[in-house]
Amino acid sequence: MAHLVGTGISLESNLLTRFDRVIRKKGYKNRSEAIRDLVRDFAVAEDVEEDRLVVGTLTMVYDHHRPKLSERLIEAQHHAENRVLAATHVHLDHHNCLEVIIMKGRSSEVRQIADRILSLRGVKHGKLVLTTHGKEF
Amino acid sequence: MAHLVGTGISLESNLLTRFDRVIRKKGYKNRSEAIRDLVRDFAVAEDVEEDRLVVGTLTMVYDHHRPKLSERLIEAQHHAENRVLAATHVHLDHHNCLEVIIMKGRSSEVRQIADRILSLRGVKHGKLVLTTHGKEF
Amino acid sequence: MAHLVGTGISLESNLLTRFDRVIRKKGYKNRSEAIRDLVRDFAVAEDVEEDRLVVGTLTMVYDHHRPKLSERLIEAQHHAENRVLAATHVHLDHHNCLEVIIMKGRSSEVRQIADRILSLRGVKHGKLVLTTHGKEF
Amino acid sequence: MAHLVGTGISLESNLLTRFDRVIRKKGYKNRSEAIRDLVRDFAVAEDVEEDRLVVGTLTMVYDHHRPKLSERLIEAQHHAENRVLAATHVHLDHHNCLEVIIMKGRSSEVRQIADRILSLRGVKHGKLVLTTHGKEF
Repeated sequence: MAHLVGTGISLESNLLTRFDRVIRKKGYKNRSEAIRDLVRDFAVAEDVEEDRLVVGTLTMVYDHHRPKLSERLIEAQHHAENRVLAATHVHLDHHNCLEVIIMKGRSSEVRQIADRILSLRGVKHGKLVLTTHGKEF
Repeated sequence: MAHLVGTGISLESNLLTRFDRVIRKKGYKNRSEAIRDLVRDFAVAEDVEEDRLVVGTLTMVYDHHRPKLSERLIEAQHHAENRVLAATHVHLDHHNCLEVIIMKGRSSEVRQIADRILSLRGVKHGKLVLTTHGKEF
Repeated sequence: MAHLVGTGISLESNLLTRFDRVIRKKGYKNRSEAIRDLVRDFAVAEDVEEDRLVVGTLTMVYDHHRPKLSERLIEAQHHAENRVLAATHVHLDHHNCLEVIIMKGRSSEVRQIADRILSLRGVKHGKLVLTTHGKEF
Repeated sequence: MAHLVGTGISLESNLLTRFDRVIRKKGYKNRSEAIRDLVRDFAVAEDVEEDRLVVGTLTMVYDHHRPKLSERLIEAQHHAENRVLAATHVHLDHHNCLEVIIMKGRSSEVRQIADRILSLRGVKHGKLVLTTHGKEF
């Protein structure tokens, strides 16, 4: 982890009052911590826009009784093999499973793998989150 | 406008380097200005979540040849009369118009007006943006 | 406007029941109208992803007492002249103005113009919406 | 799983052409499958808006060298015990870990747990995805 450096910023006094109220509600201990989170989110958005290396987690719900779907999901993950880091599975009810697939790659690549999986018959809902791959973060 | 107050924050040195690069690319003159924007966005999200007074702009594209649609749009705006502040109209091509409707009200009210308008036949696409109504911002 | 063509789709019966409930709440008259809207939204997302011609509306709140800001806003719009179609202005309170700027161009160009404007000092909050430019929609 | 029922919809011919192109690119086998996905997404958005039971996955990146952070994360999850279903952990680099926490609860409850976790010092980035809990989906 890099060392911390200080920087001074100026804000309108009433904006600061509101900010303090919101961060207290969300559980932040201090302003620095909350501002660092906003800045990091900004930096991640930039990584995605510039198609840099990112980590993506695809959350999806599927019907595990759908014939051949499990094979196709495994296949899709192996087809993109070195980009899938891990997957977690939770049984929601008799029919529905939730699966979270963790991937690493350029944002366009991760998106494409997600599109392929979400288009499979029996995959009912899904959303992709993109975050940092870590380095220099 | 409130007076500016200073506050010191600390960030990891490499995060700060990345931040400086992104804000330069986006055209910001300095860190304070960029961080104020992030903080304000955070404050607006809170206003929306807490169903406070907000200003909403609904961007929509519609087919002005659709029979009775113009009357229905006018009607929908008048029905919510004191919440619609203004509307701007642009002709996109022979069939399609773009209209931006500016509204003020609690976020749930503004959303409901937008839903009604977007559900009208002939209204083809639309998105709602919520922002501050100004006071204490 | 193109002529309508029919297509048959199949859905799980309970999903259809839920869909009917949601669209009634939102004010849709029938399923076709609601599904057309979902399909159009999907098509617009594709235009944006492929950096095609789009229309963008930038909603922003700024402090009109900020010295030189008005000139800079006018300048930024003229600098991107053939891409700005119109702008609407609403006075929110003694200090704050809302302005909606309607632009047309490739999605990356529209985003860049928006970034420049949002980074100006005194521009407090802003969000960009991208929609269709009309043709073949 | 519920049985499938057919319904007929009508769309503008050129919108249908575009739709067919996009779904082919995304890998969908047919229109029904793609439209079902759009309809389900619409239904999930409604569940969230109405604060119904949902499943949420929180993706977050944190620095595992931060003193006491691991204990605090475990504590936060136990504090919300019956709402956390599972968590998956991936080592990104020497400092950074990615963790995905799967939760079940009303959307407001899940959001609150996520806010608490994201506000912890050392948690650098995070995003919450809300999806269906399964039943009647």
